[in-house]
Amino acid sequence: MFDSGVGGLTVLRTLIQRLPHEHTVYLGDTARVPYGTRSGEVVTRYALLSARHLASYGIKLLVVACNTVSAHSLHALADALPIPVVGVIEPGAQAAAARTRGGTIAVLGTPATVASGAYQAALQRLAPLASVVARACPLFVPLAEDGWTDGEVPRLVAEKYLLELRRIGVDTAVLGCTHYPLLARTIADVLGPRVAIVDSADATAEAVASLMASREMLRPPGAAPRHRTLCTDVPDRFRAVAERFLGRPVGMVELVDLQP
Amino acid sequence: MFDSGVGGLTVLRTLIQRLPHEHTVYLGDTARVPYGTRSGEVVTRYALLSARHLASYGIKLLVVACNTVSAHSLHALADALPIPVVGVIEPGAQAAAARTRGGTIAVLGTPATVASGAYQAALQRLAPLASVVARACPLFVPLAEDGWTDGEVPRLVAEKYLLELRRIGVDTAVLGCTHYPLLARTIADVLGPRVAIVDSADATAEAVASLMASREMLRPPGAAPRHRTLCTDVPDRFRAVAERFLGRPVGMVELVDLQP
Repeated sequence: MFDSGVGGLTVLRTLIQRLPHEHTVYLGDTARVPYGTRSGEVVTRYALLSARHLASYGIKLLVVACNTVSAHSLHALADALPIPVVGVIEPGAQAAAARTRGGTIAVLGTPATVASGAYQAALQRLAPLASVVARACPLFVPLAEDGWTDGEVPRLVAEKYLLELRRIGVDTAVLGCTHYPLLARTIADVLGPRVAIVDSADATAEAVASLMASREMLRPPGAAPRHRTLCTDVPDRFRAVAERFLGRPVGMVELVDLQP
Repeated sequence: MFDSGVGGLTVLRTLIQRLPHEHTVYLGDTARVPYGTRSGEVVTRYALLSARHLASYGIKLLVVACNTVSAHSLHALADALPIPVVGVIEPGAQAAAARTRGGTIAVLGTPATVASGAYQAALQRLAPLASVVARACPLFVPLAEDGWTDGEVPRLVAEKYLLELRRIGVDTAVLGCTHYPLLARTIADVLGPRVAIVDSADATAEAVASLMASREMLRPPGAAPRHRTLCTDVPDRFRAVAERFLGRPVGMVELVDLQP
């Protein structure tokens, strides 16, 4: 699994809970974070570097735990690797399409993810009768990375972004950014109890489990699984934020160099 | 002049006001922004790429409008180029040392700038009797880039970071991040009328003007000066944010490639 930074660890956290016997290796490309402000070509170039590095560990499946890469580079990654490649957008959109009760589906994401239109296109395809609205929430990522997830400021920021969604009859909201699960409680409070919150991390873990089961790729229970964590710059700072996202100690973070 | 992104445009804005006859070329390294989370070695590698690219335009002086590069890489840049190199930290620290009235000087900056200790070290040297306190304000950059600089949320965020500084007798606060001038009014309101706000951008423009005058490098008034703006990725998004920082139209933004 890889992401531009720590965000994808919310996906890893869910995946380890769902598939507790599998070995994992997670790469955070902290030397190039954030991807969201890069052009599609640059994002694909970076994603191929990460994917090829992970391939050298003998992985059997690649999870792209990054919305920006999932929006721009899945085809290029699938062409470059001989193993299944799973992104976060399609599972998240499928889960939202299954949850909506005929109202409007809201996509919450970074400005780059919203501008890419990837969730909106997937939802239009999967739920052609649903109306879709997308809302960029640029302050959510720094609030999550700073650990400032409860209290008055996160609440006011969420109200600025989300109160309008209640008024227009949203019944389902997709957390279209891997950082947003840390703010899920505040987001749910502001949207109210009638709005279903779909976490792309949960949906992606479920999609991975289902794909691996159908292809008989699951590791049988046995010796304890190994979990390795790699990043491309400043491992100490990465670890400090990472433990909040993973919800448990990260252990040793290995520094790797992806210079092409 | 270069910076990792748009922040340095607050320095350019002040410099153009102070030296209205000079040609300028500004490079925002948006393909590698932000620098603040990178290691010192990576920052210096990136800074040398930008500096060498700007040298090819025949510049006569280089302004490093980036606190992270100023903290880590000024010596490497001065060694690499045959022209004067001016950073933002030394002028900001000098201005703060001149303004303090015997109380405590506060340095406000990103977590990376505060952790580098560069302002603190400069202030200890320039004002050895002053006490210095540094405060990281991680939400200020995304608020400034998002244009969310007034109202309840910026005020509450500023109160969280700064109210304690009033209590401990701060009399001078340095804006140690090129984004913070956009929040200067909110910062000043929270700190109160007895705290002098020192903007590193003003101090740096003054230092450049003084250096150029003493070396007789100033261009005589004549034909209108040219101002070129370069960035390394996604010029459209750069321009949208840039105009808020520069305070006037940016015009054409040229995309350049710094691949080593």
